[in-house]
Amino acid sequence: MSCKILDGKVVSESVLSGLCSEIRALLLSTGRDPGLAVVLVGDNPASKFYVESKKKACQKIGINSYDYRLPATASEGELCELIRHLNNDPEIHGILVQLPLPNGFDEQKIVELISPEKDVDGFHPVNVGRVLQGISGFKSCTPYGVLELLRYYDIDVAGKHVVIVGRSNIVGKPLASLLIQRGPGADATVTICHSKSENVRELTARADVVVAAIGVPEFLTAEMVKPGAVVVDVGINRVDDPNAKNGYRIVGDVNYAMVKKNASAITPVPGGVGPMTIAMLMKNTVESFKKSLGGLQ
Amino acid sequence: MSCKILDGKVVSESVLSGLCSEIRALLLSTGRDPGLAVVLVGDNPASKFYVESKKKACQKIGINSYDYRLPATASEGELCELIRHLNNDPEIHGILVQLPLPNGFDEQKIVELISPEKDVDGFHPVNVGRVLQGISGFKSCTPYGVLELLRYYDIDVAGKHVVIVGRSNIVGKPLASLLIQRGPGADATVTICHSKSENVRELTARADVVVAAIGVPEFLTAEMVKPGAVVVDVGINRVDDPNAKNGYRIVGDVNYAMVKKNASAITPVPGGVGPMTIAMLMKNTVESFKKSLGGLQ
Repeated sequence: MSCKILDGKVVSESVLSGLCSEIRALLLSTGRDPGLAVVLVGDNPASKFYVESKKKACQKIGINSYDYRLPATASEGELCELIRHLNNDPEIHGILVQLPLPNGFDEQKIVELISPEKDVDGFHPVNVGRVLQGISGFKSCTPYGVLELLRYYDIDVAGKHVVIVGRSNIVGKPLASLLIQRGPGADATVTICHSKSENVRELTARADVVVAAIGVPEFLTAEMVKPGAVVVDVGINRVDDPNAKNGYRIVGDVNYAMVKKNASAITPVPGGVGPMTIAMLMKNTVESFKKSLGGLQ
Repeated sequence: MSCKILDGKVVSESVLSGLCSEIRALLLSTGRDPGLAVVLVGDNPASKFYVESKKKACQKIGINSYDYRLPATASEGELCELIRHLNNDPEIHGILVQLPLPNGFDEQKIVELISPEKDVDGFHPVNVGRVLQGISGFKSCTPYGVLELLRYYDIDVAGKHVVIVGRSNIVGKPLASLLIQRGPGADATVTICHSKSENVRELTARADVVVAAIGVPEFLTAEMVKPGAVVVDVGINRVDDPNAKNGYRIVGDVNYAMVKKNASAITPVPGGVGPMTIAMLMKNTVESFKKSLGGLQ
């Protein structure tokens, strides 16, 4: 069976180039452009890397990115003060606080302090709730990216059985929340399973679409996938590899080489869901910007 | 096979009597008691009936219920004004706006105007989002009642496969949201299916617990249920019955007589999930009251 590779680089480029044209047109017609505040507390290397990637994406398509860095020793009060300031700044349409925050910060409090209208990560409970209720709200970027990837490749999930392995707040739960809604790109039958589930193998083996999002390297094996199923791999795991330059390589939650023989379509790692997350962050920022323009007219 | 009847009248009485003792003890120790504002717009007979039932439950256990009635001709602004007033009233710990509202009212707007701290129905997106994220927030009353019913009868869903038929905002979605959380009373594998789902019969036939919440009289038949499964019927449907006094009778979404032969436990209709909804509304109101006392200490 030939297996289609769902190429997140191609699709994210397509999303970004669409946004770029849109931003240019809006700049010409209104004289305004979108702004994203990128807040980094401390100097966690992975967080720095993600923040840089997001800033690069902004530059590429014409979003102004504003950098805010606080030392790990900053107080929660300072961060709160900054967020309140950004909530009120009309040049800022999206606020991204890079998680995780250093010890001592109450992440939930910080996330809930961000104005829901600027919560382009889609982590504020108001947006999480609105999405589950099927009303307009920012969609969390990784699940939104999965939907966009499937849409791009004309993979219709309506009526199909999607089994999601993993119940995290950034992937499993919000993805289920999107897929069970009514309408195009959704209308799926959705199962969420996790570490406490009995018979995970049987569940995934019956699915039309399997999404692996548990952070266990190469967890999903060929016999856990129905022939012809679509497989979406959200995992990003480092595994030791003495042959690799850095001594490790990146693998997903899917045994790619084996599952690929069985599936009708699969996302690679890296280059699958990963690039989609940043693209959808940009899309949310542009959505927020467009809403702010509407408010001015 | 003998089938246990999950008696919502018994369980709701047990919840209510626990709340009654708690309220009495708090009255003695603090001199204060909980208050629920019950807002009815227009005179829909079903809504009037529900409002009366809720007021009766309040009286029974020592919650002050405050009645607010607006004519169907009232403006949305008047209702908003009332809600703002109730949000700021320290004697009011819960605000219940009976839905549906008459034509011309924006229900979503009204629900979002209620302070999340007084949203004892659990319909505000902030609470819906918090519950999905696994953080403290008011649980929507009917799903909360289903959990309480299962807990009372020691039916442990951890690791088990719960299949929910129906994706409404008041039952299917928030119930899935509760059941997939970590911890006691939850940790279930959850499937949501609906009108667009393929093979609903196969899905329910594999479930350890089936929840029917679609509003189709006697939809769930015996062959859709695995022998020994637990069946929860959230439906309340009127069907014509020339032999009945009023010309109709109330049935659920489950073919009770047939499924009972197959299941290990089942909720009847009426007298199953129905009474639980009001009991959990009272519980949420008491929780809100207790939080307000904490804030005063």
